[in-house]
Amino acid sequence: MSKYPKVAVFGGGSWATAIVKMLCENLDQVGWYVRNETTIDYIKENEHNPNYLSSAQFNIEQLNLSSDINKMVAYADVLIFAIPSAFIKTELDKITEEYSSKIIFSAIKGIIPESGLIVGEHFNQKLNVPLNNIGVISGPCHAEEVAMERLSYLTIACRDTEKAELISNCLSSHYIKTKTSDDIIGTEYAAMLKNIFAIAAGIAHGLGYGDNFQSVLMSNSIREMKRFIKKRHKMKRNINNSAYLGDLLVTGYSIFSRNRMFGNMIGKGYTVKSAMMEMSMIAEGYYASKSAQLLNKINPAKTPIIDAVYAILYQNKNPKTVFKRLTEQLD
Amino acid sequence: MSKYPKVAVFGGGSWATAIVKMLCENLDQVGWYVRNETTIDYIKENEHNPNYLSSAQFNIEQLNLSSDINKMVAYADVLIFAIPSAFIKTELDKITEEYSSKIIFSAIKGIIPESGLIVGEHFNQKLNVPLNNIGVISGPCHAEEVAMERLSYLTIACRDTEKAELISNCLSSHYIKTKTSDDIIGTEYAAMLKNIFAIAAGIAHGLGYGDNFQSVLMSNSIREMKRFIKKRHKMKRNINNSAYLGDLLVTGYSIFSRNRMFGNMIGKGYTVKSAMMEMSMIAEGYYASKSAQLLNKINPAKTPIIDAVYAILYQNKNPKTVFKRLTEQLD
Repeated sequence: MSKYPKVAVFGGGSWATAIVKMLCENLDQVGWYVRNETTIDYIKENEHNPNYLSSAQFNIEQLNLSSDINKMVAYADVLIFAIPSAFIKTELDKITEEYSSKIIFSAIKGIIPESGLIVGEHFNQKLNVPLNNIGVISGPCHAEEVAMERLSYLTIACRDTEKAELISNCLSSHYIKTKTSDDIIGTEYAAMLKNIFAIAAGIAHGLGYGDNFQSVLMSNSIREMKRFIKKRHKMKRNINNSAYLGDLLVTGYSIFSRNRMFGNMIGKGYTVKSAMMEMSMIAEGYYASKSAQLLNKINPAKTPIIDAVYAILYQNKNPKTVFKRLTEQLD
Repeated sequence: MSKYPKVAVFGGGSWATAIVKMLCENLDQVGWYVRNETTIDYIKENEHNPNYLSSAQFNIEQLNLSSDINKMVAYADVLIFAIPSAFIKTELDKITEEYSSKIIFSAIKGIIPESGLIVGEHFNQKLNVPLNNIGVISGPCHAEEVAMERLSYLTIACRDTEKAELISNCLSSHYIKTKTSDDIIGTEYAAMLKNIFAIAAGIAHGLGYGDNFQSVLMSNSIREMKRFIKKRHKMKRNINNSAYLGDLLVTGYSIFSRNRMFGNMIGKGYTVKSAMMEMSMIAEGYYASKSAQLLNKINPAKTPIIDAVYAILYQNKNPKTVFKRLTEQLD
């Protein structure tokens, strides 16, 4: 028997494609659910994803591609979901196969809008998957750099250390180093919040603030992230570990970040609608800022940056005015 | 009487020039010691510094310029030193005027090579200035953005809160926000260490590592900074405040950072000597890495990044090999 379990990745975006690539470094066969049949045909013929991360080349013989989600659920022991949170519920609703006893890892950054829960909680509370079978794959990791095989570090969080180790082994390679963690809740919230802070960084840049301010914004963001997560799930964690601070920085500072790009357009005067139309990818932070705002009503933490982003994106407030006020609250 | 004291800035570099500019927003007259008489003549005629930050314009009537350091010491109640640490001792040796009762603020990032002390400690231990009269002006703040009047935040650290407030008032303006702190030792060490980490970031970039790795490097750097400072001076401090984390980020991520630039050249294969010759400015982190290495022999903290930079810059070790090993020690 292989030392690796049967793994399937669910999603056709850039992060899903990157995870399939990582798995292909170790596994003889990788399951890959892609909704669109035309995309599957294209991948089979051209050995890369036509829409996202097209520079990542695959050996087709390693791929078990299917547009039938139930077939893929039945195939795998480990299901890795990398579908944007805004669409995940629609996809999960299609599943009729029993999977509550399988290992479920989420590579999704965000909250499931329909339940208001982070993905791990949703699987546990709504779909009866035991918490010990649920894990999270987190950055700091831009998919684009995985395609280029540039050294990247992942954090694999699961309450069951053995399962975290198992998935770590599947993903590690000469360009991927992994670290395991038992803070699945904190890791998920960090992955969600960092997108909001990246939007804030983008707005600041779009408004003409410079590098000096950017560093103050990031320094305040990590403190805000710590306060927010502590209110949701209190445990001993070092917020400066790569899964929290590293993930914030790679998103807040990188040119690859679609959230930062989205914020930048807002700062430059685009409306939310026009900025969204201009981008072909979803800015997860848009949905995250609404969810964070809602969550923070219960046992609230002080979150001036999240509040500012929410006011701009959902309350039609003027970015310049909101940020002027925000600068008074930072230090 | 004016609500502001008589202040003089010592130094002709970009940071000194930026501080003079900030002071000119509030004070009727600002003392400015510049070693080179020709530079003074140029400033008087052209209203800007010819060598550094030349876009910052001055009203000459506000400036009390002199190349006589003793005249400037006699003039001021508050002395702000912004001379690179490698040259500070030579300048201080020229002073015959008594100044142990004056307020001394350091805007220098680094260790005085001759004494192996950070600037505050040097003034206290070697020059008998009482600790309560000594303070530090710290970033995150690139001088270049001060010239552009882009919003920046400074931390003013002094054990005597009133003096910190006094200097804060002198420096605050529509583009400068200030915060006071009593952690003068930690603030100085942070300002020194961040330059070493910025060199590391530059080396990584020069070697071809990407944004994913950069964020892991910064996440490890702040944890390393915390460990190092704690061993030197233990007190309650939030390492994620702007004076520590913010200062690290602005230096590690900004294109303006000469330390990052220096590291980048080393990573690309320049020798230390040729990289230094290529740059017209001093990379403070070069000296800082040696000092940090020495300091860390007493009550050592785990500092793999500082060790790596030291090995490359002073022990002629191959950057590629050293960083390959370093990547195994990060997480």
